[in-house]
Amino acid sequence: MAKILGVDPGLTRCGFGLVEGKKAIDFGVFQTDAKTDPAARVGEIALKLERLIDKHHPELVALERVFAQANLRSVMGVAQISGALMATAHSRGIPVEFFTPSEVKAAVTGNGRATKDQVGLMVKAILQMNEIPKPADVADALAVAVCAQKRSTKATTEAQRKWVAASKAANRQLG
Amino acid sequence: MAKILGVDPGLTRCGFGLVEGKKAIDFGVFQTDAKTDPAARVGEIALKLERLIDKHHPELVALERVFAQANLRSVMGVAQISGALMATAHSRGIPVEFFTPSEVKAAVTGNGRATKDQVGLMVKAILQMNEIPKPADVADALAVAVCAQKRSTKATTEAQRKWVAASKAANRQLG
Repeated sequence: MAKILGVDPGLTRCGFGLVEGKKAIDFGVFQTDAKTDPAARVGEIALKLERLIDKHHPELVALERVFAQANLRSVMGVAQISGALMATAHSRGIPVEFFTPSEVKAAVTGNGRATKDQVGLMVKAILQMNEIPKPADVADALAVAVCAQKRSTKATTEAQRKWVAASKAANRQLG
Repeated sequence: MAKILGVDPGLTRCGFGLVEGKKAIDFGVFQTDAKTDPAARVGEIALKLERLIDKHHPELVALERVFAQANLRSVMGVAQISGALMATAHSRGIPVEFFTPSEVKAAVTGNGRATKDQVGLMVKAILQMNEIPKPADVADALAVAVCAQKRSTKATTEAQRKWVAASKAANRQLG
């Protein structure tokens, strides 16, 4: 089974969840202080995500697709973290895939309009966890990973990924 | 005089301009194909910006602050590139500073409501260039760098930067 890193990006709280098969192998939340410099906040979270990727070598990074929201500032923070993460994943030959909130809810609960509580309960059940992961950012990150487990069109095996990386390196040497 | 990297971030065209004193020492535009994978587009531009930073070692990265715009998709691309750039700058101890569009226009032309053409003309004059830099993304990136030259509160000297980097490294070893 593919090892997938699901991320619920955010500047204040960035949830992450690593899922392999039906097991949550690592999960948690990175937090930054709203009073500190924005570039430092993005930089700190980006560094922690990079370390997580280099520790676990996921085959796919899965993110929720952001739509129009009331708060532009929060959308910007989400997109900034996502961009840093996309760059890190790309530099390591790891594909990034986006899923809409309703895709995630449907994949986890069977209902594209499920509530946060229902998503949390199903994440706990699917991944056979002792309790619902908290805060909600963690459950959301795990839900995205579970969704990607079921629906990804990009997850590759380790062997495929090495082939792509080797072919990229060869192209760089040629060009 | 400080060496400043101004960037006009975007997924389709990302303009950059390096200004030292009243001289444009490097400028241009990175482009990606809209048909390719979003993470690959962010990754390619992020890599090129990283190489630019590691070639020139700017003392400051200057960006235009994005406000609500009609097109959320384009705002997202801008924020994703900005986020990757913020992470790169932060990892190298280089401060990132944002300026509003009217601050940039006012710093370059004396008028916060100047047109694109006026900004281009003044960038050419201030930096003693032979012609107005094209496309507009390049002129905009140089304009942000010129604005930062005048108004930055974060630009540091090389010595200060080394001190900050050394103190960060020491803290990492402690903690």
